[in-house]
Amino acid sequence: MVKTKVGIVGVTGYAGAELLRILITHPYVKIGAISSVSFEDSLISDVYPAFYGFCDKVCKNQDKVIEKSDVIFAALPAGLSQELAYKCNQEDKIFIDLGADFRLSNEEDYKEWYGGEYENKNLHRQSAYGLPELFRSEIRGKKIIGNPGCYPTSIALALAPAMKARYIKSSGIIIDSKSGTTGAGRGTTQTTHFPECNENFAAYKIAAHRHTPEIEQTLSIAYGSSVKVTFVPHLLPVNRGILSTCYAPLAAGIGEHEVRSLYERVYGNEYFVRLLPEGSVANIKNVKYSNFCDISIHTDERTGTLIICSAIDNMVKGAAGQAVQNMNILLGLPETTGLEFVPPSF
Amino acid sequence: MVKTKVGIVGVTGYAGAELLRILITHPYVKIGAISSVSFEDSLISDVYPAFYGFCDKVCKNQDKVIEKSDVIFAALPAGLSQELAYKCNQEDKIFIDLGADFRLSNEEDYKEWYGGEYENKNLHRQSAYGLPELFRSEIRGKKIIGNPGCYPTSIALALAPAMKARYIKSSGIIIDSKSGTTGAGRGTTQTTHFPECNENFAAYKIAAHRHTPEIEQTLSIAYGSSVKVTFVPHLLPVNRGILSTCYAPLAAGIGEHEVRSLYERVYGNEYFVRLLPEGSVANIKNVKYSNFCDISIHTDERTGTLIICSAIDNMVKGAAGQAVQNMNILLGLPETTGLEFVPPSF
Amino acid sequence: MVKTKVGIVGVTGYAGAELLRILITHPYVKIGAISSVSFEDSLISDVYPAFYGFCDKVCKNQDKVIEKSDVIFAALPAGLSQELAYKCNQEDKIFIDLGADFRLSNEEDYKEWYGGEYENKNLHRQSAYGLPELFRSEIRGKKIIGNPGCYPTSIALALAPAMKARYIKSSGIIIDSKSGTTGAGRGTTQTTHFPECNENFAAYKIAAHRHTPEIEQTLSIAYGSSVKVTFVPHLLPVNRGILSTCYAPLAAGIGEHEVRSLYERVYGNEYFVRLLPEGSVANIKNVKYSNFCDISIHTDERTGTLIICSAIDNMVKGAAGQAVQNMNILLGLPETTGLEFVPPSF
Amino acid sequence: MVKTKVGIVGVTGYAGAELLRILITHPYVKIGAISSVSFEDSLISDVYPAFYGFCDKVCKNQDKVIEKSDVIFAALPAGLSQELAYKCNQEDKIFIDLGADFRLSNEEDYKEWYGGEYENKNLHRQSAYGLPELFRSEIRGKKIIGNPGCYPTSIALALAPAMKARYIKSSGIIIDSKSGTTGAGRGTTQTTHFPECNENFAAYKIAAHRHTPEIEQTLSIAYGSSVKVTFVPHLLPVNRGILSTCYAPLAAGIGEHEVRSLYERVYGNEYFVRLLPEGSVANIKNVKYSNFCDISIHTDERTGTLIICSAIDNMVKGAAGQAVQNMNILLGLPETTGLEFVPPSF
Repeated sequence: MVKTKVGIVGVTGYAGAELLRILITHPYVKIGAISSVSFEDSLISDVYPAFYGFCDKVCKNQDKVIEKSDVIFAALPAGLSQELAYKCNQEDKIFIDLGADFRLSNEEDYKEWYGGEYENKNLHRQSAYGLPELFRSEIRGKKIIGNPGCYPTSIALALAPAMKARYIKSSGIIIDSKSGTTGAGRGTTQTTHFPECNENFAAYKIAAHRHTPEIEQTLSIAYGSSVKVTFVPHLLPVNRGILSTCYAPLAAGIGEHEVRSLYERVYGNEYFVRLLPEGSVANIKNVKYSNFCDISIHTDERTGTLIICSAIDNMVKGAAGQAVQNMNILLGLPETTGLEFVPPSF
Repeated sequence: MVKTKVGIVGVTGYAGAELLRILITHPYVKIGAISSVSFEDSLISDVYPAFYGFCDKVCKNQDKVIEKSDVIFAALPAGLSQELAYKCNQEDKIFIDLGADFRLSNEEDYKEWYGGEYENKNLHRQSAYGLPELFRSEIRGKKIIGNPGCYPTSIALALAPAMKARYIKSSGIIIDSKSGTTGAGRGTTQTTHFPECNENFAAYKIAAHRHTPEIEQTLSIAYGSSVKVTFVPHLLPVNRGILSTCYAPLAAGIGEHEVRSLYERVYGNEYFVRLLPEGSVANIKNVKYSNFCDISIHTDERTGTLIICSAIDNMVKGAAGQAVQNMNILLGLPETTGLEFVPPSF
Repeated sequence: MVKTKVGIVGVTGYAGAELLRILITHPYVKIGAISSVSFEDSLISDVYPAFYGFCDKVCKNQDKVIEKSDVIFAALPAGLSQELAYKCNQEDKIFIDLGADFRLSNEEDYKEWYGGEYENKNLHRQSAYGLPELFRSEIRGKKIIGNPGCYPTSIALALAPAMKARYIKSSGIIIDSKSGTTGAGRGTTQTTHFPECNENFAAYKIAAHRHTPEIEQTLSIAYGSSVKVTFVPHLLPVNRGILSTCYAPLAAGIGEHEVRSLYERVYGNEYFVRLLPEGSVANIKNVKYSNFCDISIHTDERTGTLIICSAIDNMVKGAAGQAVQNMNILLGLPETTGLEFVPPSF
Repeated sequence: MVKTKVGIVGVTGYAGAELLRILITHPYVKIGAISSVSFEDSLISDVYPAFYGFCDKVCKNQDKVIEKSDVIFAALPAGLSQELAYKCNQEDKIFIDLGADFRLSNEEDYKEWYGGEYENKNLHRQSAYGLPELFRSEIRGKKIIGNPGCYPTSIALALAPAMKARYIKSSGIIIDSKSGTTGAGRGTTQTTHFPECNENFAAYKIAAHRHTPEIEQTLSIAYGSSVKVTFVPHLLPVNRGILSTCYAPLAAGIGEHEVRSLYERVYGNEYFVRLLPEGSVANIKNVKYSNFCDISIHTDERTGTLIICSAIDNMVKGAAGQAVQNMNILLGLPETTGLEFVPPSF
């Protein structure tokens, strides 16, 4: 089989580096070119010595990546992907955006939370939101994919089935998420300076995180009308992993048994969603370095509350792994190709 | 001033050891005797070499502690304090229980959640719940104190003022707490085995933790009628600290400004509660190794939700420090005596 | 290609579980049977939920593993492998011992440091010490392999070339090693209890660790006569990784340049040894979850000391990965088969 | 007693902040003024919210600190203290430098390792090296103190007695030190970025760290002639603590017993040095947040090597605590005043 040429724009950020790690061992692709603004002309293995022996590519610029690749991944800050998407589209190449520019279908949400505009609305109409377990049919055949945010992935997979079945009410939903520090990126900050992050824990951007409209977009589609949630992210002193603890008022007559049966039906054939057996609780350790989303279902009968715990590796199912899963769909490959990582437990 | 003789039953558990650490430097007490079932006849500095040079006491038994002390602290598993309280009471000595036997005023709750009975109801009638900021007047003059649980301390201080003022509704309250590993005690378990706890994160005892009735007891007193909450604790891969993120629906017409003004009035004179200024978020780092409870107030205007973050050191304000605070009250000392620790930031 | 049936005795320890993880994705083997004394009759995915979906085997006993497998790996405490090796040998099956029973060629060393005897000296004569980069030719064709210890692997690869070339003196060698906590195994201890291990660091078994004779055995073979070293291991508060900092007096006329040239020659074709370029320092992060040994060479010209830093993942190159590397050799497969893991950097 | 006014120049670095923390609770001093170049005009409690309620000082400039204080501490990068020392000296005020400008008596060493000159040699002649356990008599009566570096403190206390007694040889000394991340300071770097520091471990500045001449200075004084050592520091993924593992060839006829007896005589009356009993091993946990140096003595009889493990809190005995110890000496206070912290074990 001829290997597809893939390229990464923004390869030296954490999501870009994780993409490279996954793509290096993917059986049906080869790296066409990589780029980085901060490290242009540097060997990637000088920036990340872990790649020493695996990739001797030098970081180039965006245009070189487009030229040398048939599938282009971008891991860029919000606002920087639209022009790139346009160029890829002009050359009829696949563009998978790990940033936020193609996640929100409502431009007003983008304006409000990200402060920018959709420069080319036609591109957005051609794009799909790349959460395969929920939107697989929309993804197929597209050329532009908005790869979901890390928090939204963990939350949508946890709540969308219950929302869609109206097993929970649409108001009073509380989502308390905790993310490892790679989610904050490679750039140094006081918050992620080891002596201040280690042995610490706090919430941040309380009820003000940019992932909020993306979470609500998916839940609203599932519910069939507009849903608002309270979303509070926290920074965990670990490298990888997101755990979202999702709380929602149960609809009348619905209990843990009904919810569990529903999720078994919905996710029974999904390789990357592991619905844990009764009595188990989702944790970060068991999904680290894998593309899995582990989900556990619980109820507080005293208050009539559904509690769903959802765990992903923010760098894999929450970013690079899901991007490759989307690529597999677009290339007509089995969705799990190159992604069957066994999480290491310790 | 003559120093009061104090004793610790269960000194080799983490709460007991932390009590010893605090009492060693307390200016108005001296250690009468200490006891441990697991380490009877061992030097405490052999069990905890950090005490080397500070305390050369040998662990004895309970009776020796009662005999040699005027104030007896007990840090024991649930069910083991009642007989000890009785003995202390017979000898008219002060008994401060860091366990759960004297926290719940309703014996039915104790039966349901702890599985035991109140062997001597008279003792319970004489006891007080030792959360000074909320129940100072009930504590004064008592001889038996039920020192609050760690989670309930962080939660009651966060929510009781808003409950009492009816600034929040009494249903739909969600409390998502995260605790450091010392809360799980000194005994080894698979969950707290370093390679399995480190880089991990998960909820446990979901909507089933024994601290639930204690949390509801305080909130119900504040509200004036029965309140039920959903409480989910999580295990954080840090040594110390609890962060509780508390969510409650705001009452009509109430916003962040009203809540902040209320809390400024309620806690303005409380040394150990630090209400953080607008824009700050409570974190664990800033209270570690201190008796403070840092509280930050936030709202999600989009959903009408009050969000309060509350941080304590689970071993200090959540256990040993608060026990000494109670002792200070009972001995007529300034409440902050021996407790003015500056948290170390890093 | 027909897949070889492999089995693991002691699969629920950390080394056993890591072996399973690697073997699951190895393209030319399938799991015949697994065993565990502690968890006999349990599903391995109940013991390690990370395996959920990958391995639905139930833990059996040793005999079942021998019966169902052509290659048997054992990850057992010292002293428990000899009988197992005998049984495998009787059935002409390959036996790879991750324990210590087949590492030392001199039975007196085994008696002194492990306290046991060689029950069947013939078996030991048929075995090889499984450090491929140094003893590849001895390994080929054998049926019994003593897989090296974790510390000895990191140290032998660091010092053997310089020893063999007599670029360093044979006395005054100091080896200061630091290991992650998985090296201490799955069993809980006070030392590896999270609150006592986290934010702590110390040496242990100072100049008394059982790996000492194994280290000296390899260095003595390299040097051509008996070598003694001072070896001090330390426990690092991380999950995985060993860093050995090795100090040796340089021979007359030898400097960093000569040592580097030597190591380039020796390791130039070794896939799993990455000799880092001048100016780089070996670290744990860049080898984690991989079978690499990263080596960096330094000198203290002021004191005429060679300093070599050597980093491995103690669970992979220090245990399970190296065992699979040995299996590949014995099965005539390319040595890197199933072991080309890209270390994840973060 | 009238409280002495103390000031801190460079209060917002970690050493400065730790000094403030200690001085706040010191019974015989009050804070005159504090300064910071980076945070001039900021409230210190805005920079370090842990101080909220303890210190409402605003950061000023150096001149204000000199004006308002009788004892001036400086925690500045190398090269920035000399002018400040001069100004303090002109006003006959005590100056305690936590930086490197007054540690080395040989200006040539300073030029070689720090690249600067002694602008006012007279000041250096008036200064003392502030390691009280070894140089107490030189410290008394001085007005300028060079407070020792963190690594040199841990190493000098470990090796000086054996050097002085010539129980060890003067060549072949290897010092393998490991430091927590606060030693790297408050400024953010890629190395101390949480996702890259956490779960990592490596050596740095191998045989090239600036503390080398300071270490050799003290050991040479003890030995009576010039001593050279190999010193390799490593970065530990913990907040606080230094563990130095020191290796030295034993002199003929000297064994562990002789060394232990010697250290018992030398340190028997030293409050801040805890010589651990035989069988104990110094660790970081037992000295954290205290001014202790824990020392354990071991030997490798097989190779004739003395091994001393020495543990300090790099921020306390390695910086701020020792500075206050020096101040106490200069002010004629008991040396332990304000420094009797009980290390918290966990």
